[in-house]
Amino acid sequence: MTDMLPVLADSVRLDEDGVHILDRRQFPFRREWVLCKNLDEVADAIFGMVTQSSGPYFAALGGMVLAARDAAGLPPAEVRAHLESAGARLIATRTTNNHLRKAVACVLDAVVGRDDVVNAAEEGARRGDELYRARSRALGSHAAKLLPDDGVVLTHCWADLYLVELVLAARRAGKEPAFVCTETRPYLQGARLTAATLAEMDVDTTVITDGMGAAELASGRIDALITAADRVTMDGHVVNKIGTLGLAVAAAAFDVPFHALVQAPDQATATGTDVPIEYRDGAEVLTVLGQPTTSGRIRGRYPAFDVTPPRFVTTVVTDRGPFAPDRLGEYYAEGEPNQ
Amino acid sequence: MTDMLPVLADSVRLDEDGVHILDRRQFPFRREWVLCKNLDEVADAIFGMVTQSSGPYFAALGGMVLAARDAAGLPPAEVRAHLESAGARLIATRTTNNHLRKAVACVLDAVVGRDDVVNAAEEGARRGDELYRARSRALGSHAAKLLPDDGVVLTHCWADLYLVELVLAARRAGKEPAFVCTETRPYLQGARLTAATLAEMDVDTTVITDGMGAAELASGRIDALITAADRVTMDGHVVNKIGTLGLAVAAAAFDVPFHALVQAPDQATATGTDVPIEYRDGAEVLTVLGQPTTSGRIRGRYPAFDVTPPRFVTTVVTDRGPFAPDRLGEYYAEGEPNQ
Repeated sequence: MTDMLPVLADSVRLDEDGVHILDRRQFPFRREWVLCKNLDEVADAIFGMVTQSSGPYFAALGGMVLAARDAAGLPPAEVRAHLESAGARLIATRTTNNHLRKAVACVLDAVVGRDDVVNAAEEGARRGDELYRARSRALGSHAAKLLPDDGVVLTHCWADLYLVELVLAARRAGKEPAFVCTETRPYLQGARLTAATLAEMDVDTTVITDGMGAAELASGRIDALITAADRVTMDGHVVNKIGTLGLAVAAAAFDVPFHALVQAPDQATATGTDVPIEYRDGAEVLTVLGQPTTSGRIRGRYPAFDVTPPRFVTTVVTDRGPFAPDRLGEYYAEGEPNQ
Repeated sequence: MTDMLPVLADSVRLDEDGVHILDRRQFPFRREWVLCKNLDEVADAIFGMVTQSSGPYFAALGGMVLAARDAAGLPPAEVRAHLESAGARLIATRTTNNHLRKAVACVLDAVVGRDDVVNAAEEGARRGDELYRARSRALGSHAAKLLPDDGVVLTHCWADLYLVELVLAARRAGKEPAFVCTETRPYLQGARLTAATLAEMDVDTTVITDGMGAAELASGRIDALITAADRVTMDGHVVNKIGTLGLAVAAAAFDVPFHALVQAPDQATATGTDVPIEYRDGAEVLTVLGQPTTSGRIRGRYPAFDVTPPRFVTTVVTDRGPFAPDRLGEYYAEGEPNQ
């Protein structure tokens, strides 16, 4: 199956010389890989949006291996502190998504009680990679069941492996969903990553600007709004790329179901106000593809995420199946997932 | 007062050599004027978005004068047909807004029974210009009364003279509203025209991307959503730039009032489904400031306007004051407005 996957499904690679990250800021116009030779360079790449969505998860796994390689010469007593410090550095790069904490924990857990710290970190990273992909595959299969045979899905930003697995699972079930993608300013992930990847997978793809979503939802053409979630709180608040809230509110107003995709709700987060929203530099809003959009003496404001209350959410689709947003506690009825 | 007005408040000028139109596609980066020497060039400029919002109204007034100059040598019996054909050509350039029909009617009415068709057309155009400005000024005064002393207004796209007059009227009343402007893709009118003009008027101005509006409305920071309307139907449907619907739905969900500005509701249009929505070339969605936003094999879709049902509208502010969307018939209780 691997050779059927689109480029972005394998866009972070750990190698002897470091972590190679496909530069999503340039994609699909150019395919350039950024080589991060040490932990600091990985952290800078994540903060600088070289990769995003699930990319930072894989980058953080690799970054922790680089930190382990760096720590290999240290006295055993200092190795743990070195790795924990490295993990904290990675986690601090982006505050809203859980992926970084999980990737760091995965490698930290793997090195406990091990003398061969590099081998152990590499095994931990490999295990994290495999688990993440397996859980995304399970999630995609559950999400595909919610689609009609030839439905039209509105999506926002870039749902990454969840989206790829959703499309693959839908096809296995004989379904051919078409997608309408918001372009997702300011970084245009919807146009550059989602639409380009769907087209690469031969999916019928239409791009709209971010302001057109409500009219699409009111038109009767859309069968479901489906987005990833960076985090879902235990009471069903969906934290995702800025713009998700407006689409979810419009979907509710025009009776279109909104399905949010996340591997698992976050047991550490009770409700929406517990999630730190990352504000990025407002100047990023005032340019597009490097060109200014307005004159001087004007501020930009850039909250990177918004929080959709559960009353606007139809389903939270996890690796353990779909849940109503007010029944997410049931996810953990069978215990913690492997991660 | 004229010298206090921002550049865009006087951006279409009729002269001996034709109609000069400030190119809003380049504003505020460059101040270039397009000279339209005849009716066809005016029509092409309107269709090509050299000017928009109220710009086409003024351009159509000037275009009809050019048509009258062109018709001056014709037999009297053919003058009327020539002018009516010119008017039809102008009206066909953009189908959603009423401005073009009004501008054409204003000049056609002025030439009835007149032998000096050029003088008569010029008088009609001048009268149309003055009336439009007076009505916008009245509308702005009524709208300013709805604002708190130091409120924050979210606006979308470019409300042109309505916005300029709203700001001037607010200041006359001792109010200093701050504005948050959506950038308004694909043409970026919000960033390029609204934000630049508000900054030119020394108004506190913040730009957000189109997807950020709902989060702003949910934040508690916004006192009112205010946009122009290209048309308001007699039953309170607001037709305006694509993206207005999503903001209005979010405003309603988070208890922020939505005030739509229009000189008068359209007696010829009973309800939203009566309004022809202009679809522009979908390829326009796939570029920004001339650069492509995605790869090939992808469609764009570009409905230029959307229709907001009255349940999401708080007030329709006209030159005769504010009306609830279900009481627009009262606008005409005192008869037809001058136009």
